[in-house]
Amino acid sequence: MTELMDASADFTASCPLPIGNYPHVLLAHGGGGRLMQQLIDGVFGPAFANPALDERHDGAHLTLGGKGLAFTTDSYVVRPLFFPGGDIGAMAVNGTVNDLAMCGARPRWLSAGFILEEGLPMATLQRVVASMRTAAAAAGVEIVTGDTKVVDKGKGDGLFITTAGLGVIESPGRIGPGQVRLGDVVLLSGDVGRHGMAIMSVREGLEFDSPIESDCAPLVTPVMALLDAGVKVSCLRDLTRGGLVAALNEIADASGLQIDIVESAVPVIEPVRGACEILGFDPLYVANEGRFVAFVSPDTAELALTVLQRTLPDTRPARIGEVVTGRPGLVTLRSAIGATRILDLLSGEQLPRIC
Amino acid sequence: MTELMDASADFTASCPLPIGNYPHVLLAHGGGGRLMQQLIDGVFGPAFANPALDERHDGAHLTLGGKGLAFTTDSYVVRPLFFPGGDIGAMAVNGTVNDLAMCGARPRWLSAGFILEEGLPMATLQRVVASMRTAAAAAGVEIVTGDTKVVDKGKGDGLFITTAGLGVIESPGRIGPGQVRLGDVVLLSGDVGRHGMAIMSVREGLEFDSPIESDCAPLVTPVMALLDAGVKVSCLRDLTRGGLVAALNEIADASGLQIDIVESAVPVIEPVRGACEILGFDPLYVANEGRFVAFVSPDTAELALTVLQRTLPDTRPARIGEVVTGRPGLVTLRSAIGATRILDLLSGEQLPRIC
Repeated sequence: MTELMDASADFTASCPLPIGNYPHVLLAHGGGGRLMQQLIDGVFGPAFANPALDERHDGAHLTLGGKGLAFTTDSYVVRPLFFPGGDIGAMAVNGTVNDLAMCGARPRWLSAGFILEEGLPMATLQRVVASMRTAAAAAGVEIVTGDTKVVDKGKGDGLFITTAGLGVIESPGRIGPGQVRLGDVVLLSGDVGRHGMAIMSVREGLEFDSPIESDCAPLVTPVMALLDAGVKVSCLRDLTRGGLVAALNEIADASGLQIDIVESAVPVIEPVRGACEILGFDPLYVANEGRFVAFVSPDTAELALTVLQRTLPDTRPARIGEVVTGRPGLVTLRSAIGATRILDLLSGEQLPRIC
Repeated sequence: MTELMDASADFTASCPLPIGNYPHVLLAHGGGGRLMQQLIDGVFGPAFANPALDERHDGAHLTLGGKGLAFTTDSYVVRPLFFPGGDIGAMAVNGTVNDLAMCGARPRWLSAGFILEEGLPMATLQRVVASMRTAAAAAGVEIVTGDTKVVDKGKGDGLFITTAGLGVIESPGRIGPGQVRLGDVVLLSGDVGRHGMAIMSVREGLEFDSPIESDCAPLVTPVMALLDAGVKVSCLRDLTRGGLVAALNEIADASGLQIDIVESAVPVIEPVRGACEILGFDPLYVANEGRFVAFVSPDTAELALTVLQRTLPDTRPARIGEVVTGRPGLVTLRSAIGATRILDLLSGEQLPRIC
């Protein structure tokens, strides 16, 4: 809180444009919450405005030679580099692959930019690169171009990776927040909260009877299966920074519709629920690296759930809610006893550097 | 030197695979010289092997819907962020645009991943983003997708940017080191050494009568003009880390041919020559951000030079050498008095974090 107040104090002196009244970048600006939205709305959006960027989707839709292309990028700064169920290399491949899949695209090619800190053990780099290779093979993509920079010791943090991805769009219609319609059913591809709690347990040195593993995985197969089955998909979004709630808020906001979720329908495995209770987290806000929501037409919702259950037999896919008439941009949660509360964006991410 | 010896000393203990005998990443591994080649050959190449990557060009050639696509990425960690003639934002756009142009492609779309250090003044970010916007407009590209991460104070260095770029290949034939033929003429698009010396003068606090400005600029216009004029272009390469010598060595190595350069033909402006003499640099090894070499067939060399002189009226394009019979992979320099010396790769870059 002190930092925020300090930041406000000297605002008028150094900041030409108010970005939510913060004259300096805070950790929370990278957290997938309200402050990041302000950074995008206040700095990046106005500067780079163009139709592809303005769609606010996980990737840009481009057209080339009659084909639809999806193009996306993500930087990865997760700490620690290795954690139960994954590492920065697997994340750098799967995260970008998943952003392409969320555009209804089959991921094809990746680029990889490495920013290494002087002194990084070569063995660490080799382990990360080997993990990227395995992940790329599993997701069916090739890493076709790359770059390496080295920064002085103390000016980085071991290893940062930025991947960009290219995919060929296979969905017949546009997929994105702008396509969401009243009555659309919200499906969730599996239980939430594993990635954040896996990272947190390492950072805090927690030991559980059964260690929580990150859900880090490629989502190409279930998405392609939905499209192949003829499901009418309006929007797809993977649940990374800010978890389920951030994804739903972004879609509610961009579509101008209200989304209503049934609390008891959202699967959370017992170890994650327990860890969240101990640490004071809400699993609906915790980051995932292998889960997504699908907004589908009501008449194909049952088919879609069957497809998800078939392609994701271990993750408990579920129907969790629907798009309703109400207040545009609102996400609401109905509890077992019938009470309704608003699921609002946090300012930042509960866990910095989660991805 | 101490660091290198330390590194060798504990090599056997911690490094599973010898990467030029260095168990830790050194600054020089990011310098565009021999150590970076070892990193690529020893770590990235074997892990990610595929035809596009194996071409060792500035970008990957992909084919989609009958169209040729170029795809490339670069991370930018230049220090300081702002310098005479440019800044990290302009570099992040122009550098990636130029890598696409070197594939004979018209740059179309960019992605941008930002890694911000907590505490970065928002005004700095806004200035960089504004510069990216200006550079993108000048190069005719759109920044269509992006990502932002924030790392803790002391775990970054203000601002790193990774851009990836997509372009549509417009050259009739393949352009790359593999296309270089005996007898090809080597053209240079302008005087060398400005970018490195501009950065160096800021770092060292040097003051010259006329300050040296970086040559940071997009190279789309001259490249497209060469293709439009029907010049038979074998290979194009921009002269970034390691300067002219690194680019020529990479091409000599990948093509398996010898390249012979005439020393007096390489243009260097007087302030750069003077600064290099004072600081002990060789301008042929100094990084540029707006210069390239073109390998062209002898029968279109004169046409090509005319096109370069027309499209680059201020940079003194020149014919500087040719591809000769001799030792594969060798680059030689003939002096005014007829002596010949080998232009070998350095281990790293004379100036770390030049781009």
